[in-house]
Parts: sequence; structure tokens; C-alpha cells
Amino acid sequence: MDEFVVTPWEVRGRVDYQKLLHHFGAKPLTPAELSLVEKYAGEVHPLLKRGFFYAHRDFDLLLKWHGESRPWALYTGRGPSGPVHIGHMVPWILLKWLSDKFGVEVYFQMTDDEKFFDDPEMELAKATGWAYENALDVIALGFTPDKLHIIIDTKDVEPLYPIAVKVAKKITWNTAKATFGFSDSTNIGLIFYPSLQIAVAFLPTELRGETTPVLIPCAIDQDPYFRLARDVADVLGYPKPATLYSKFIMSLTGESKMSASNPDSAIYTTDSEKVVKRKIYNAFTGGRPTAEEQRKYGGDPEICPIFHYHMLFDPDDGAVERVKSDCKSGTLLCGECKAALFEKVREFLTRHREMREKVAGRVDEYRLGAKLQ
Amino acid sequence: MDEFVVTPWEVRGRVDYQKLLHHFGAKPLTPAELSLVEKYAGEVHPLLKRGFFYAHRDFDLLLKWHGESRPWALYTGRGPSGPVHIGHMVPWILLKWLSDKFGVEVYFQMTDDEKFFDDPEMELAKATGWAYENALDVIALGFTPDKLHIIIDTKDVEPLYPIAVKVAKKITWNTAKATFGFSDSTNIGLIFYPSLQIAVAFLPTELRGETTPVLIPCAIDQDPYFRLARDVADVLGYPKPATLYSKFIMSLTGESKMSASNPDSAIYTTDSEKVVKRKIYNAFTGGRPTAEEQRKYGGDPEICPIFHYHMLFDPDDGAVERVKSDCKSGTLLCGECKAALFEKVREFLTRHREMREKVAGRVDEYRLGAKLQ
Repeated sequence: MDEFVVTPWEVRGRVDYQKLLHHFGAKPLTPAELSLVEKYAGEVHPLLKRGFFYAHRDFDLLLKWHGESRPWALYTGRGPSGPVHIGHMVPWILLKWLSDKFGVEVYFQMTDDEKFFDDPEMELAKATGWAYENALDVIALGFTPDKLHIIIDTKDVEPLYPIAVKVAKKITWNTAKATFGFSDSTNIGLIFYPSLQIAVAFLPTELRGETTPVLIPCAIDQDPYFRLARDVADVLGYPKPATLYSKFIMSLTGESKMSASNPDSAIYTTDSEKVVKRKIYNAFTGGRPTAEEQRKYGGDPEICPIFHYHMLFDPDDGAVERVKSDCKSGTLLCGECKAALFEKVREFLTRHREMREKVAGRVDEYRLGAKLQ
Repeated sequence: MDEFVVTPWEVRGRVDYQKLLHHFGAKPLTPAELSLVEKYAGEVHPLLKRGFFYAHRDFDLLLKWHGESRPWALYTGRGPSGPVHIGHMVPWILLKWLSDKFGVEVYFQMTDDEKFFDDPEMELAKATGWAYENALDVIALGFTPDKLHIIIDTKDVEPLYPIAVKVAKKITWNTAKATFGFSDSTNIGLIFYPSLQIAVAFLPTELRGETTPVLIPCAIDQDPYFRLARDVADVLGYPKPATLYSKFIMSLTGESKMSASNPDSAIYTTDSEKVVKRKIYNAFTGGRPTAEEQRKYGGDPEICPIFHYHMLFDPDDGAVERVKSDCKSGTLLCGECKAALFEKVREFLTRHREMREKVAGRVDEYRLGAKLQ
């Protein structure tokens, strides 16, 4: 087994997701939860069915709570430090689906403060600008302002701060240091920031004035944040947030996670068709060095980012299975497989850009702070 | 000379104010500054003239700036953890005088968050409640809403947070620890809090969109906060805050500073006349054990809280000088001196309570957050 490291601030090596689950102490997603999802949603989203979301904390309890017609909300976020890539959008697609199928509201935190604290080169106005830009990518999924509440930290802190204050009192420097890997030279903004990330988990309860747990769909590396959030919830008498954990989106270069420092490792929603085509055609694959060898021995879809993207973006189970078996058998060559993926991604991006343009300039209609004024 | 300790979180022993000045590296207030005050204000307030405010940073530059008709603002604050005593009100009286005479606006921060972070027993709702209560004592000095902007941290954080974020990025854990005496078990709220205290110093510049330095009248123990604020101002390109430092208000028990844990050490604005009378009559004095000895040897006004209060509350220089010389000569006995002080305090408190009642329920008219909405 390769060595690997997963923390909220670093992902390195080839990730063993089962080992990681065991290490964090979260639960695997089982047929029991999926059948409850099917019961309430009428179907199971491919990202759940195909095991991209594969672990959780208290998702079973949340589904039970939903079955009792009790209120809950969805919560996720993004650190706005640049353009959104389609890897970011995958969990948001599930978010939108959950919101639609279960009829619940979404709290979406844009942590421009965190990105500013974390990057010595980042200007605050730039991070806030990216927050507005990225918010368009979320809204473009088809959200209406009654279902999506965007929180840009430096703009919408008012309803959040009194909760963050209660959270902050329960977290010592020692705990923060151990949980988030802070050092003596960490700035006091970054040290305080987890209070704001945790506070959103309790915001629906405060705003509604009744117990309203949240479900947080996010990548598994965020678990330390929300494990701490669950401890704090207990102490403060808020409902513990439930979580739904995904694996990472593979890098086009074949690494376990895309790297923000290598733009060729990901497809951005702002990439031109030409760039998208180039990135896909230059991507690492699980194929053999020559077409001849591929026909003879077949490829390995498990390590292939191209197959990974088919799995993420094609709702047709049969089609995905065909890609897989044709790759393994050697019938499908990487070139054709890439061409097919390009078509799917092109279609997705075209639709997304149309939607994005339609909602341009409308972020404030979705901002929680603006709604509460 | 007695040993003494002065930090923002502890005052112990008999304070040597000249030594302290030298230790902190602030400047003594000199006739040069006072004559500029007289030039612009038409008079010099007793609290300046009598040396209760005795030190500063850049007050001379601020007066020069004022002489050039350039804008500035006043800034001070209070940690709302209980009722206000008349010791708290003394610097606010100067604040009001400066605002009137120089025609400048006042930013008054109520740090309910800090008080909540700092005291394990304090509830947030209680601290915020005290913020509203204490705000009435400030407003009762006769401020109008165009001249006084109250900032209750958990209510009015919105305009402050984007500035605090910039401040926080420039302060590491190491610096915060050394400046404020934090430990490994300090909570992350208290660690972040100095950013919000410093941010107010830059708020007038942000709100007006032009360089608007602040003058901060406060007790000398606050110097470490604002020394850091001045360093950060330099780095961020904001004007350095100027400060005007007072000595501490003597405890009625004779200590250098009143103690929040001993209610008999101070007179609260909420104390009944009976209680005020008892506190004054039971106070420590610089007098002799018997009337006979007092008549023979005279008393020591320098160590006497009763004389200290005459000095703080009587605008008549001649009257204060008479108390001093009559005490020293032994003509004035402590009983008469206390009776005379009680009359002055009673009068002040009666007028203050009338004003306080008039403005009851009107705090929101003064709250910055409410005005900006």
C-alpha cells in the first residue's frame, strides 16, 4: 500500500479511502441509508449509488428525522481563491439534487476571509471578488433565492458572529492548533476562522428558532472541522451536524486530488472549449502505451481520471458500465474514450455557461445578509 | 518605592505613573499640548489641567492636524460586564468635552464579545444586555446621535469585520501571546478579539473615505493594545491612532485602581443615595486616626481617595486647592470633607439619572449598525 496523508490542509499520495474512513472514525454509506434515500427521494443519485459519496456521520439519523417530517437544512461552502472547476461542481450537483428531492434550504458559505488569511499574497478585495464570481456557479445550478442562502463571510457576518462567538469560547488555542495544524506564526484571523465555519451549522436552528440540524456534503478531508463542530454542538446544545463525505475528484494528471497550483489538473468552468479539449486529450489515463497493447491487455479504469469523469458526469448507468468493460476488454481505446468524455463535458459546460450568464449580477438576491436586512 | 504591575489584564501595587510612562515609552503631556488645547477649545478641561490625563502618543500631531482643519474622530470603549461606576464616567466626561469643543464624532465600542470570552461564567445575552445598559450612561452625558456612534460588537460587527480581517492577518499567535498574555488554554475568540478593538481605530477612515485619524482617551494600561494598533496602522496604510492616557481612578479603599470584585471600592451610577453615602463615609482617607492628631499634623491628600474624587468632580480650581491646603494644615477634618464630597457626587448622580431616564430605550438610535442599514 502506498503511503498517503489527508488533512484539511494537505492531501498527498494515493489515498486508501477505506483506511482513511477507519482513521477518521466515520461510517461507511450502506444500502440501508441508500434505500431510505430512495424511499424519500424516489430515486438514488448516481453520485451516491456509484460510491463517490461513500461515508457519513449521522446521515442515518438525519434520514430518520426527515421521515418524521422534522426540519433540516443543507450546508456546504467554498474557499473562493480562483475560478471554479468542474470537480468543485460535482458535490454541488448532489447538493442541488438533495435540496430539490427533500425540499430543504441550502446555506452556502463563501469563506473569503479564510482565503485571505491563508494566502500571504491574496488581497481581500480579490477574495471577495472571487466569492461573487464563484457564487454564480452555484446559483447557475438552478437555485431560487428562497432555497439558496449565500453567506459571503466579510459581507454577511452579522447573523453569524453571535453564534461564532459562542463557538469560539469553547475552542482553546491547544485544540485549534492540534485540529488545524496551526503554528506560532499563524495569524489570529486564521485561528478564529473555524468558529465561523462551525457557526453556519447552527445558523438554521437560530434563524428558525427550532432544532434544525444540517447535512453537510463535502470531501472527506473536511472531517476534522466537523468532528470539532459536533463536539461543540453537544456543549452548546445545538443539534450535531450530519455529514456526507465524498472521495476526491481525481486530477487529470492521475493524482488522487486536483491541485490548485497546476491548472492542467482540472477543467475550469471558465475554460474555452479549445482548452477543455486540450486538457482532456493530454490527460493521464489507465490505458496502455500503444493501441496494440490496449487491444491485447485492456486498460485500468480504476486509476484513470477519464473514466472517473465518465462516472461523475454520465447519469446513464449502462453507458458508464460499457465504458468500464470496454476499457478492460481492450475494445475501447483512450482516444475514443476521451472524445466521448469531451462531448459530455462540452454539453455540461455549455448549459452551465448559459445558466451562469442568465444569473449574472444577481448574487445579492441570494445573500443571506441582504435578505435579513 | 513599592513594587507594582500594570498590564491590560492586571494592575497591582501602588503605581508609579512616571516610571510606568517611561516603561511604556509614551510621552508626558506638557504645557505645549495644553496651550494648543486652549487655543482651539478656548479653555483647558480640569482633567487635563490637573494632570489626571498625563501622557499621550501623537496628541501633539493630532492637534496640529486639527489646526489644519483636517478631520479626525474620538474613539473609546468599555467592556460591559456590569454596572458603570462614576470612575468609568470620568474619562467619558472628557470625551464629551473634546467632542463638543473640537466638533468631532465619537466611536464608542461596547465589547460584549470580549467580556463573554474572558469570563467563563458570563453568558453572551448578559454581556450584550450590559452593553445596552452601559450605553445609556454614555448617551446620558448629552450626546446626540449624529455625534455618538455606539458599536455593540455582537450587533454591529458588519462594518467592522472587513477591517478586522485585514488587521488579524498582520498579527501572529506569537505577537498576540506576548502582547496580551495569552496561554495555551486561551479560547480562540479572545485571541481574535484584539483585531476588532484595533479595527475601530481605522473605521472612521473607511467610512469617510479619507484619512481620519482617531484620538483614544483611555487609562494608561491600554497602551499595549494601541501600540500594536499603531504598528498595524503603519503596515496597512491607515493613520496611526493618537492616544491620551489617564491615571487610574483610585479605589475608595485606597488602592491605585478600583476592583470590579469589590463593590465597595467604587460608586456605581445605580447606587442609591444611601449606599453612596455609606461608601463615602466608610472610605479610606489620607487623614489621621483621631481629630486631634489631624488638627495637629494635617492629612495627606496625595494618598486619599476622597481628595482624588474632589479633584475629579469639582470644576472649581479654587475649591479643590482649598480642600488640599485645609487637609494638609489640619483645618479640614475627614468627616466634613466626606460630607462635602457626598454633596458633589449626589448632585452629579441626580443629574445623571435624570438624563439616563430621558434616553432610556433609545440606544438603537445611536448604534452604528442600525444607522448604516
